[in-house]
Amino acid sequence: MIKVTIFNEFRHEKQKESIRAIYPDGIHGAIKAGIEDEEILVRTVTLDDPECGLTQEVLDDTDVLLWWGHMAHHEVPDEVAQRVRDAVHSGMGAIFLHSGHHSKPFRLLMGTPCNLTWREDGDYELVWVVNPAHPIAQGIGRFIKLEEVETYGEPFSIPEPDELVFIGSYEGGEVFRSGCCWQRGNGRVFYFQPGHETYPIYHQPEIVKVIKNAIHWAKPTYRAIIECPHVKKPLAE
Amino acid sequence: MIKVTIFNEFRHEKQKESIRAIYPDGIHGAIKAGIEDEEILVRTVTLDDPECGLTQEVLDDTDVLLWWGHMAHHEVPDEVAQRVRDAVHSGMGAIFLHSGHHSKPFRLLMGTPCNLTWREDGDYELVWVVNPAHPIAQGIGRFIKLEEVETYGEPFSIPEPDELVFIGSYEGGEVFRSGCCWQRGNGRVFYFQPGHETYPIYHQPEIVKVIKNAIHWAKPTYRAIIECPHVKKPLAE
Amino acid sequence: MIKVTIFNEFRHEKQKESIRAIYPDGIHGAIKAGIEDEEILVRTVTLDDPECGLTQEVLDDTDVLLWWGHMAHHEVPDEVAQRVRDAVHSGMGAIFLHSGHHSKPFRLLMGTPCNLTWREDGDYELVWVVNPAHPIAQGIGRFIKLEEVETYGEPFSIPEPDELVFIGSYEGGEVFRSGCCWQRGNGRVFYFQPGHETYPIYHQPEIVKVIKNAIHWAKPTYRAIIECPHVKKPLAE
Amino acid sequence: MIKVTIFNEFRHEKQKESIRAIYPDGIHGAIKAGIEDEEILVRTVTLDDPECGLTQEVLDDTDVLLWWGHMAHHEVPDEVAQRVRDAVHSGMGAIFLHSGHHSKPFRLLMGTPCNLTWREDGDYELVWVVNPAHPIAQGIGRFIKLEEVETYGEPFSIPEPDELVFIGSYEGGEVFRSGCCWQRGNGRVFYFQPGHETYPIYHQPEIVKVIKNAIHWAKPTYRAIIECPHVKKPLAE
Repeated sequence: MIKVTIFNEFRHEKQKESIRAIYPDGIHGAIKAGIEDEEILVRTVTLDDPECGLTQEVLDDTDVLLWWGHMAHHEVPDEVAQRVRDAVHSGMGAIFLHSGHHSKPFRLLMGTPCNLTWREDGDYELVWVVNPAHPIAQGIGRFIKLEEVETYGEPFSIPEPDELVFIGSYEGGEVFRSGCCWQRGNGRVFYFQPGHETYPIYHQPEIVKVIKNAIHWAKPTYRAIIECPHVKKPLAE
Repeated sequence: MIKVTIFNEFRHEKQKESIRAIYPDGIHGAIKAGIEDEEILVRTVTLDDPECGLTQEVLDDTDVLLWWGHMAHHEVPDEVAQRVRDAVHSGMGAIFLHSGHHSKPFRLLMGTPCNLTWREDGDYELVWVVNPAHPIAQGIGRFIKLEEVETYGEPFSIPEPDELVFIGSYEGGEVFRSGCCWQRGNGRVFYFQPGHETYPIYHQPEIVKVIKNAIHWAKPTYRAIIECPHVKKPLAE
Repeated sequence: MIKVTIFNEFRHEKQKESIRAIYPDGIHGAIKAGIEDEEILVRTVTLDDPECGLTQEVLDDTDVLLWWGHMAHHEVPDEVAQRVRDAVHSGMGAIFLHSGHHSKPFRLLMGTPCNLTWREDGDYELVWVVNPAHPIAQGIGRFIKLEEVETYGEPFSIPEPDELVFIGSYEGGEVFRSGCCWQRGNGRVFYFQPGHETYPIYHQPEIVKVIKNAIHWAKPTYRAIIECPHVKKPLAE
Repeated sequence: MIKVTIFNEFRHEKQKESIRAIYPDGIHGAIKAGIEDEEILVRTVTLDDPECGLTQEVLDDTDVLLWWGHMAHHEVPDEVAQRVRDAVHSGMGAIFLHSGHHSKPFRLLMGTPCNLTWREDGDYELVWVVNPAHPIAQGIGRFIKLEEVETYGEPFSIPEPDELVFIGSYEGGEVFRSGCCWQRGNGRVFYFQPGHETYPIYHQPEIVKVIKNAIHWAKPTYRAIIECPHVKKPLAE
């Protein structure tokens, strides 16, 4: 059983009728409904929970954390963001969705601005599989078509990904590294670009499939706090 | 002074009037005219020269080799391809253009099939800068627009690039890692996708600029044959 | 069930009494005895089998190939080496052991000379875990001590590994990237340095553990021949 | 002319006679004396300067920053550390020396703990060249011998380096990735392990040579603040 925690900012859905119509149970609710099965157990937390719902206890009990945030990144306390970063270092997997590129924990883990170019014109997007043998791309064809999306464009100021899985192209011609993998400490990090709040993207089966694949890929191999020990000579031990 | 050798297959230009109209002096002639300046000295060789013009003597006198081939990859003798590979190992830079993805030396250097998907519909292409700080991207804006190209699509079966500089998008929606860097032995390799023979792409100033930047990037830092020596204990030396 | 094929050159063991004393059933026999369990099914082949035992049929029926060779790399026919390379491209995993760094298929997959420095003084070696969260390092402590080994030293002329798992140090002071991962086409490749024929290294439990871990890591995710198809416009499909 | 700023904590030298004897002008003074030439112009700043001497004005006027700190990392104000990180993002090069692995800006740039194992037994170290063609390794032989050092050991919890240039081995048998390169935003980062305060390491010519090479490698290619602009459709521009 993989224990997944979904963090959702959960503001857009409360503030705007049109978004609530797409995600009546919140983005977290839609993702939970999509991914939960006999191998994946899901807990959800939101920005307005005490400590964003991300206490040390919750993180210690989480194999893979999903993160969706957008308009209120700054309201996540620094100490919560650092706790998430440290949990990844200790082996927890983390999947950052869409506008999560600007979330505090993602930026802390990347060490770069994570900026990009953007526009909202309802372009279609084609999300292309670059590495068909990657575990995260299994069960997906050559590309996923998304009917309407927010457009993200390069340059995306991230460290060179350890593995690049998807590249998106947009109706207007932009490209974006839309599926990227990194290791940070003992934990694995996946960024996945699709998911603007004004479109029903998390209801699309291929998107759910990618997220499930990513959860399996990101689950911990080795969980331990990384320390900086004073040691003896190896052969004297 | 950087000594550049351009290898061009030089068959399309001889066989087809429409192509000869674009490249009356051959693709090699057009590239040479574009890149030659007070820092870059150019020699050209073609498939029909003895040993493809790529004798050991020529390679030893080459800092950076440019390669354009398409319809006659199989006519390059294996021993010439291996000699080029070995020269890269010894420090020579190499830039493979467009359909050079399927050339023998590029495949030998990559260790992968270097396959892709393709179609010829005269799409426009936007070649996007992914890494604006990379030496090869200097002087280029956000993207290069090419009016008509052959379309290449992912998956491009190459090793994960050491550095990804450009990603192209096409009118029909494909994406392609169109500017990729690798080190192989002591030498540097750059692959650059634009350049189909039926379009005047090598006359376009931004394309010439990228090739010149790549020549400066790929020039040897250290030139030495890599051996496998029997050694003594380091502190006994 | 993971289907493993062990290729062993099997010459040293036949020619030299002292080596036969360590590996009475051949190096392949010792490794087979070590790794076989309810999840791993092992077949062994040797250089003197017809086609080295590596027919297309055998490779198609192999999930992960282990390779040990040393004195007779040149006797492996080029077409067998290319068949192994192509099987990796199509998704088969491959683990190259010790002097397999100079085998034909490893060099074809790397695209580099794969040279190193070497000496035989019976040094001890410490094989250090660099990435404790990597699947291949699970169950290993900080390092593995090998009492007596052949010494390999840097520079090891390989492409920058996708993931570096182990670095070895030797009594005389050399270092060597002794556990390295790459993807090539759809397949995964692991190089593991320990294993000289004159020492009982493949009888050591931690070495067996690493090889078993690597088999699990390298087993195919996606098995398909990589082609270069002519395609239609994506949205016209 | 490359403008270099050396930041030195400058506490050990003031507090301990034995260290002052080695570095009477401070570690910064010794490095400055070693590297300054007709191409490299050096300014030095220390922890006790206002804002650590690292005002925005100074960083804007710096091509490459060198950083040495150890006992007082926590006294560097967060806002100074963030300013350094942001300057790297905007294209400034940065070289972190020895115990600078734990400095605030290095950790911010890496996104990992940057922990390691350590002991102080006056071991000798051999710093091996792993990539002889790398610009930072030019003019260095197979290895650098350091007579007495502090021992650092793996695992070193850093992101997989973009390029690994040096690996150190120690008398007691440890290994350490002692020369590592990354790009972060538009800037280049090099970590170089040698340099404990109790040994005259920065007086050793090969160490000075490596630092000078690294300065040339890290100097900015492209200097610009990375923003996150709202854009128009590319072909509408």
